[in-house]
Amino acid sequence: MTRLFNFSAGPAALPLAVLQQVRDEMLEWGGTGASVMEVSHRGKPFIAAAKQAEADLRALLDVPSDYKVLFLQGGATQHFAQIPMNIAAPDQAADYVITGAWGKKAAAYAKHLCRVNIAASSESARFESLPDPASYKLSANAAFVHVTPNETIGGIEMHELPALGDAPVVADLSSTLLSRPLDVSKYGVIYAGAQKNIGPSGLVILIIRPDLLERAPAHLSPIFSYRANAEAESMLNTPPTFSWYFAGLVFKWLLAQGGLAAMAERNGLKASTLYGFIDQSGFYSNPIAPAARSMMNVIFRLPSPDLDAKFVKEAEAEGLSALAGHRDVGGMRASIYNAMPIDGVNALTQFMAEFARRNG
Amino acid sequence: MTRLFNFSAGPAALPLAVLQQVRDEMLEWGGTGASVMEVSHRGKPFIAAAKQAEADLRALLDVPSDYKVLFLQGGATQHFAQIPMNIAAPDQAADYVITGAWGKKAAAYAKHLCRVNIAASSESARFESLPDPASYKLSANAAFVHVTPNETIGGIEMHELPALGDAPVVADLSSTLLSRPLDVSKYGVIYAGAQKNIGPSGLVILIIRPDLLERAPAHLSPIFSYRANAEAESMLNTPPTFSWYFAGLVFKWLLAQGGLAAMAERNGLKASTLYGFIDQSGFYSNPIAPAARSMMNVIFRLPSPDLDAKFVKEAEAEGLSALAGHRDVGGMRASIYNAMPIDGVNALTQFMAEFARRNG
Repeated sequence: MTRLFNFSAGPAALPLAVLQQVRDEMLEWGGTGASVMEVSHRGKPFIAAAKQAEADLRALLDVPSDYKVLFLQGGATQHFAQIPMNIAAPDQAADYVITGAWGKKAAAYAKHLCRVNIAASSESARFESLPDPASYKLSANAAFVHVTPNETIGGIEMHELPALGDAPVVADLSSTLLSRPLDVSKYGVIYAGAQKNIGPSGLVILIIRPDLLERAPAHLSPIFSYRANAEAESMLNTPPTFSWYFAGLVFKWLLAQGGLAAMAERNGLKASTLYGFIDQSGFYSNPIAPAARSMMNVIFRLPSPDLDAKFVKEAEAEGLSALAGHRDVGGMRASIYNAMPIDGVNALTQFMAEFARRNG
Repeated sequence: MTRLFNFSAGPAALPLAVLQQVRDEMLEWGGTGASVMEVSHRGKPFIAAAKQAEADLRALLDVPSDYKVLFLQGGATQHFAQIPMNIAAPDQAADYVITGAWGKKAAAYAKHLCRVNIAASSESARFESLPDPASYKLSANAAFVHVTPNETIGGIEMHELPALGDAPVVADLSSTLLSRPLDVSKYGVIYAGAQKNIGPSGLVILIIRPDLLERAPAHLSPIFSYRANAEAESMLNTPPTFSWYFAGLVFKWLLAQGGLAAMAERNGLKASTLYGFIDQSGFYSNPIAPAARSMMNVIFRLPSPDLDAKFVKEAEAEGLSALAGHRDVGGMRASIYNAMPIDGVNALTQFMAEFARRNG
């Protein structure tokens, strides 16, 4: 068995060079005489690595200096609840823009924690297009407006933020953070599970505008308070040290690749190659409105679902893994995060062409 | 640099054989053509590994079959809050037995989530002895009674549970779980951060009696609900897959060592060797009531704190790392979890003897 081109939506492919470094440092890390997993998070070696990771992340994203960058746990899903706990009062409205399954779940998990208002939704269009800008019904004094700019399951993406009024924008960027440059200053809160473009699952990056930290209610247990976590520099309790270290290596790798502008160029080429192939194939199809197609998660369908299992099996035999679509939508999905090289996309389109020829 | 004998209190030393296996599987795991970090938590290979880990943990601890075993996130600290959220009403009393810094923190983090009653505390004795059994003031209808049987910072341990009435016993066993056999049926909830005897930080093992799952209030966001997490078999969202896999390898290692009875024997020998040396040294001292000394975290003091820095530095040069005590108590601390071999303890006592000769 050798390494395959891995199109998993997450936990997803990670940079090979980083995995090799992690492997080589597994027994002895940074002159400590121990694995990075075995040293105190309060000791100098780990603190230095953690600070360097934050500095590199800030450099990559050009994070405004007053924003706080937190390394937390719980997955994006926990923060579906924790965000309203921190920045909304229980009787305060929060607006949710629903463009797919994850945004819908975010709204559901906020229930009982604030007054959830569905400001816009494209569910009636099976999440295959974005809501009509004229359809948005924003609340007058919303605590925040929540968006999921890229929907990992549906493969749909808002490439530009719509007009969202004055409330702070809260964005679940799990599947696109670090795949391209981003104007962080447009957001009140950005959060992302690590397991797409950052590192192992179990780590969440959360970037928050400082005034929002002040909203944490006094009765909130400190462990759930972003303010308390910020004051403790994400070490209120033992953080997931291995994942933090791993993310730091990924940030270094991204800097060495030329940063996020370079990644955007490569990721754009990968996506346009794959969508271009699908559109001209006469065999495969993508149902998403062209202007709203995801750059990270490319869904496609075969002429008949009867071919799905055969496609997945034969692709695997050709070294192309994890192409089955999410169980909720079926079909195929190729997730092409930062760690997927263009060679992987070319191998996929070549296989897809051959499969179409044999089954067309 | 080679691997040192690592006496860190946590994140702590892990079994070398497990680290070697993790290293060797870093690029290709289990025939998947990917690292374990890069595969879906919902795919067959990971599900199989996760189920095997749970089965091995159940076998090691002889967990009653109706108890649920959860693999969660957030550290023990998050569960200081999450436990009352799940099994107490906001106006219901919960009893806390305080024998050190962690129990005190558990009670503080439960504030506003239930009516915290300090049923017993040995703080007035600087946590150097356990509370007098006659001093316990248990509530009439407590939601639960919380204990921290071993206090990692203070090095004090309840080797037997005191009489605690009828309320379910909730125990933070972060630093002793898997170090010896345990009668799980005596507890309502057992929880432990992984970073002592289980694996990398960022994973929490929580074992819960099934009737307590039913207490979760309807308004609780599912991500915080033990019932919802149990129903989803700890995959309500993406779990920390690498840590779960790693813990599974540790469980296999423990089984290969002869299980928890064998570990208890080794750990008992390590602790008695170290305490025995301290007591007869005429140089080092341990302030804890002898019957309440921790088997995992051995604290000791030098004749003068002026010698502390010198001791730590010279020990490190002899290959003995992370011996400084917690900043709140000072002095020295040797944590001797499962992964510390008796050779490490012997090397430590030999160094301590030489240091005493040179500085006595």
